[in-house]
Amino acid sequence: MNASEFQRARSPEAKRLREASILEAAQALGREHGIRTVTLTDIAAAVGMHKSALLRYFETREEIFLRLTAEGWQEWSRELSEQLRASADPGPESVARAFAATLATRGMFCDLLAHAPLNLERNVSLDAVRDFKLATLAARGPIIAAVREQLPTLDEQDAGDLIATAVALAGALWQIATPPADVAALYRSDPRLAHAVIEVEPRLARILTATITGMTTRQHEPGA
Amino acid sequence: MNASEFQRARSPEAKRLREASILEAAQALGREHGIRTVTLTDIAAAVGMHKSALLRYFETREEIFLRLTAEGWQEWSRELSEQLRASADPGPESVARAFAATLATRGMFCDLLAHAPLNLERNVSLDAVRDFKLATLAARGPIIAAVREQLPTLDEQDAGDLIATAVALAGALWQIATPPADVAALYRSDPRLAHAVIEVEPRLARILTATITGMTTRQHEPGA
Repeated sequence: MNASEFQRARSPEAKRLREASILEAAQALGREHGIRTVTLTDIAAAVGMHKSALLRYFETREEIFLRLTAEGWQEWSRELSEQLRASADPGPESVARAFAATLATRGMFCDLLAHAPLNLERNVSLDAVRDFKLATLAARGPIIAAVREQLPTLDEQDAGDLIATAVALAGALWQIATPPADVAALYRSDPRLAHAVIEVEPRLARILTATITGMTTRQHEPGA
Repeated sequence: MNASEFQRARSPEAKRLREASILEAAQALGREHGIRTVTLTDIAAAVGMHKSALLRYFETREEIFLRLTAEGWQEWSRELSEQLRASADPGPESVARAFAATLATRGMFCDLLAHAPLNLERNVSLDAVRDFKLATLAARGPIIAAVREQLPTLDEQDAGDLIATAVALAGALWQIATPPADVAALYRSDPRLAHAVIEVEPRLARILTATITGMTTRQHEPGA
């Protein structure tokens, strides 16, 4: 696809398709190189547009990555809710395992999760912040409902806390577990740094099992 | 050594003092504006040096912020260990409250915690990464010891998981709780975004209480 095919979109549908192809290119680049290093110029080149043309669809690279994060939330929410409901043996450990498994297989989403709160701080419009917050709110709903079906003693606040813990840990642990090649080699070469080599999924499952177990055993104070 | 090198590094002590004043200036700027926006040029201006002179002490802004993060870990470790040992009524809730209180009063450290894994990805030498990892490892030791004095059923892995959870959540929650002024105004103005307004300390205390409670009630499998 060359630049001339990307003349200004003439219909809402054409605009939507171009946005989708920009997001797809950004996703592929982010998955390959880590989103930290991906620039607007890289994205424009990958999609075969001039940067000035791309700027008619997205104002900044941060806006593109916030949109990808919002889409990541929707996709993760569907998959996690489904896995939770499919569990034959509901309990803290099976719920924790579903969170850990669905996050650990979504490396790009974990990368986005670590960057999202920092990206919200700058280079995006207030409309983009509002859209992002409403999208993540909507994605949380089905997860909260599925968690509470599996673990009826958890209230809505517990389920929200569980999601916050899972995404904060997934973002942080994924960054630590996926260093650049030279840093990874350093961790392997120095026995004092063995603690820096971590596996995301078992650690996430272990911690979330403890958190959920604590929530289910805790006495709920009335009105708290 | 030529004349100019002699002038800029009269003694290791002079070098150390100069480094300390650079770190102090970066800390003050980060606390006031959020570390995301602070540049090397800003730091050089605040400390009254030319940027080229500053580059003889630190290669990049990321190196400066990694050093501040390492110092933050040491200071937090001292304070938290002390608070844990001073507790008259040890238990999951008092340990969780000590973590939450010491983190929530250290906004700049929380900001650094969210940025550290991303800063490790680029613009610092492998020596700087190694120093950082060893410093945080050393800072973890006293916290793990103090936690296990308070809660003897927790093993070393539990205490390490607790620290990882606390710092991941503190970094993420602080970013969400401390948006720029215009984003904060948006959250307050739109009732659908009420969930975006959070308080770090009570939420952190609540989640960590659940996590520790789960760790203390869980059956430890032998050899696990």
